[in-house]
Amino acid sequence: MSPKSSNLTTQRLEALSDGVIAIAATLLILEIGRVEVHGDGGLFDAIIDLWPSYLAYIVSFVVIGLIWVAHHSMFERISSVDRPLLFLNLALLMGIGFIPWPTSVVADYIGDGGINASVATALYSVTMTLIGVVFVGMWVHLVRHPEHTIESVTETQLRRSMRLALVSPIVYAATIALAFVSPIICLVAYALLALYFARGPSARALLAAQGRSAEANDPPEE
Amino acid sequence: MSPKSSNLTTQRLEALSDGVIAIAATLLILEIGRVEVHGDGGLFDAIIDLWPSYLAYIVSFVVIGLIWVAHHSMFERISSVDRPLLFLNLALLMGIGFIPWPTSVVADYIGDGGINASVATALYSVTMTLIGVVFVGMWVHLVRHPEHTIESVTETQLRRSMRLALVSPIVYAATIALAFVSPIICLVAYALLALYFARGPSARALLAAQGRSAEANDPPEE
Amino acid sequence: MSPKSSNLTTQRLEALSDGVIAIAATLLILEIGRVEVHGDGGLFDAIIDLWPSYLAYIVSFVVIGLIWVAHHSMFERISSVDRPLLFLNLALLMGIGFIPWPTSVVADYIGDGGINASVATALYSVTMTLIGVVFVGMWVHLVRHPEHTIESVTETQLRRSMRLALVSPIVYAATIALAFVSPIICLVAYALLALYFARGPSARALLAAQGRSAEANDPPEE
Amino acid sequence: MSPKSSNLTTQRLEALSDGVIAIAATLLILEIGRVEVHGDGGLFDAIIDLWPSYLAYIVSFVVIGLIWVAHHSMFERISSVDRPLLFLNLALLMGIGFIPWPTSVVADYIGDGGINASVATALYSVTMTLIGVVFVGMWVHLVRHPEHTIESVTETQLRRSMRLALVSPIVYAATIALAFVSPIICLVAYALLALYFARGPSARALLAAQGRSAEANDPPEE
Repeated sequence: MSPKSSNLTTQRLEALSDGVIAIAATLLILEIGRVEVHGDGGLFDAIIDLWPSYLAYIVSFVVIGLIWVAHHSMFERISSVDRPLLFLNLALLMGIGFIPWPTSVVADYIGDGGINASVATALYSVTMTLIGVVFVGMWVHLVRHPEHTIESVTETQLRRSMRLALVSPIVYAATIALAFVSPIICLVAYALLALYFARGPSARALLAAQGRSAEANDPPEE
Repeated sequence: MSPKSSNLTTQRLEALSDGVIAIAATLLILEIGRVEVHGDGGLFDAIIDLWPSYLAYIVSFVVIGLIWVAHHSMFERISSVDRPLLFLNLALLMGIGFIPWPTSVVADYIGDGGINASVATALYSVTMTLIGVVFVGMWVHLVRHPEHTIESVTETQLRRSMRLALVSPIVYAATIALAFVSPIICLVAYALLALYFARGPSARALLAAQGRSAEANDPPEE
Repeated sequence: MSPKSSNLTTQRLEALSDGVIAIAATLLILEIGRVEVHGDGGLFDAIIDLWPSYLAYIVSFVVIGLIWVAHHSMFERISSVDRPLLFLNLALLMGIGFIPWPTSVVADYIGDGGINASVATALYSVTMTLIGVVFVGMWVHLVRHPEHTIESVTETQLRRSMRLALVSPIVYAATIALAFVSPIICLVAYALLALYFARGPSARALLAAQGRSAEANDPPEE
Repeated sequence: MSPKSSNLTTQRLEALSDGVIAIAATLLILEIGRVEVHGDGGLFDAIIDLWPSYLAYIVSFVVIGLIWVAHHSMFERISSVDRPLLFLNLALLMGIGFIPWPTSVVADYIGDGGINASVATALYSVTMTLIGVVFVGMWVHLVRHPEHTIESVTETQLRRSMRLALVSPIVYAATIALAFVSPIICLVAYALLALYFARGPSARALLAAQGRSAEANDPPEE
């Protein structure tokens, strides 16, 4: 196990993940589609009527951005990958690459109200729950195999990260039911969860890590 | 603060940004869509009739290219990121990833003339104004927190970059109104703004930076 | 031949390949398309009816992920590229970039049953067979030109990799016929092949390689 | 001017170019679109009828691959970029990003025969001519400003690269007229040009460059 952060395969896996994350985020815009208006002057109304699409775009872009933060925060602590990590990460990418589709379903149906709006929102919640479960699975694996993490990381820290990662699938699973009560409250729950993660441990760990690496790179001041 | 330019997290954020920028630029082509013609010999006219799509493609590709220049020019001076910078950058990417959609709306409606052409152009101006505001926000943050910039950058330089970045949202905001006077003059304004930035401070700073880094890498000639 | 793994051109070719692989995997989601329902409450059924799309998405995502593993495993052993390797790799990327299309054909027709389901599955098998043939071609070239591989790799190892790579086009070619017996059994064959490769030599070689590189980077323990 | 190949800004510009090239190549597959068949057993014929799409996919993928080779071959010799190079490169990317559209037009109309097939092929030739002109423009700029190239490159070599780059826009311009004689002969001309470049100087220079860099990296054998 190397004192430096990661080896070539780990870096490549992170680069592949970054690629899929960037592409999935940028493909989100395709869900909005062409605006069709009838007659002169209808474009303004047509643009306003697409508010669910903008909302869905913003929510999913933020979610994917936070996944990027969480993923980097995890890989900052990984020194090598084994087969389960490789395939858990592949499952994670499969989930991230899937996000544009439930996003477009929510955009198309949340404005309808009724049961279709609930089903669309529940589909979104199910997707996010599964992604969250894979994330927890990766942390569980790292707790059980600390030989794949960098030396400076303790088992206590890994266990803490694992417990904190549990918040995401638990809250998202709860929003599956919530979708059938009110899709709008469900969106508010997504926003609160995003806020929690934006202020939360992954972002903190990632930002702290750069402090550490800056120190490590700098020659001692003496 | 490290004398070298940036740490790992900063580099990764820049790589993610580059990815989103490259993808958004390349997705622009999807707005042109399939050409449909009726009967033999109609394809030439159909291709000519798509001139607003080519124009929109060129304008947005140049704009995204200039954003790339401005973004690199900024990150050349950033040594570490904090939470606000991380999320301002995410907001910036959300704006860049959004560009293909107003581009396609402009392509579809600017040829119609009338109020729809104005609304489409105004939508484009609004998008660009918001992107410009986020850019200014990033510079404001760097002025207030110079500890995230490289040592060789002075507060005076940061303030100057911040003021110069203000040009973009101010001009774009003015074009929102201009769109309702004449969408064509609005396009001319976009072109002039692009020319200003192509000749302007970001490109200059970026090109100058490579001179500095080349010098820094070279052993002194003696 | 360099003792270090690869030179700049080789790394760039690998980066280009990674880019195409990441994009092809993420574009898979576009095949699912918009859900259209008629009337309130129809969305749930419409989402369920799309099961062939989810299945096709998962199969192709896993296949592309395994191609990434196999490609990296190969390039871990390549020190320089010559013209045939450059163009064989380009042919490989052409095949990988093609995957989203047969995936969408399978998704659209496997649920129909009948001859169309068989033709769609056979199209998928043909695509994968061709990709497998190009992979074998690359190994054959490396066996004949071991000067393009890193020093620590023996001819015996290269021959073994070449023989193991043969499994993929042979099994996929067999599934072309199998598609006309039963498209469902064909899918099971894909899954078994994926499982074989997930547990198999490429993944093992890649994971072992990082052990080697970690050792190489570490100072000797004494 | 550094003896090493390139500085940070040059590397980033190359990375951005690689991103756009990889994405443009992978987006080509979207032109094939959904297959629509009527009745059982029609899928096989529908897949066969799409032969122009496969042909167009292959031609454009090979062309983009060769552009990648030519671009890397050029950047192997560039040590720093100035404003004209930056914006010529942006124009080049705009051309590369445009390729999927004329590709889809050729795929849709070359099977029709008649004037539409000629117009579609001419559109493709015009696009490629313009890309070739920008490439020549970059070489002209490097000949006039050799201070942006690495030390080991002589003016004679730059002039030779410039002259060889002229082949592409000249032949493509000739195929604009040829398209109205016979779109099929036009495709043959594209294939011959691709073969010329595949065997030609860019690929040779790139492959030779890695020999040089391998030597540079290796300790002298003594």
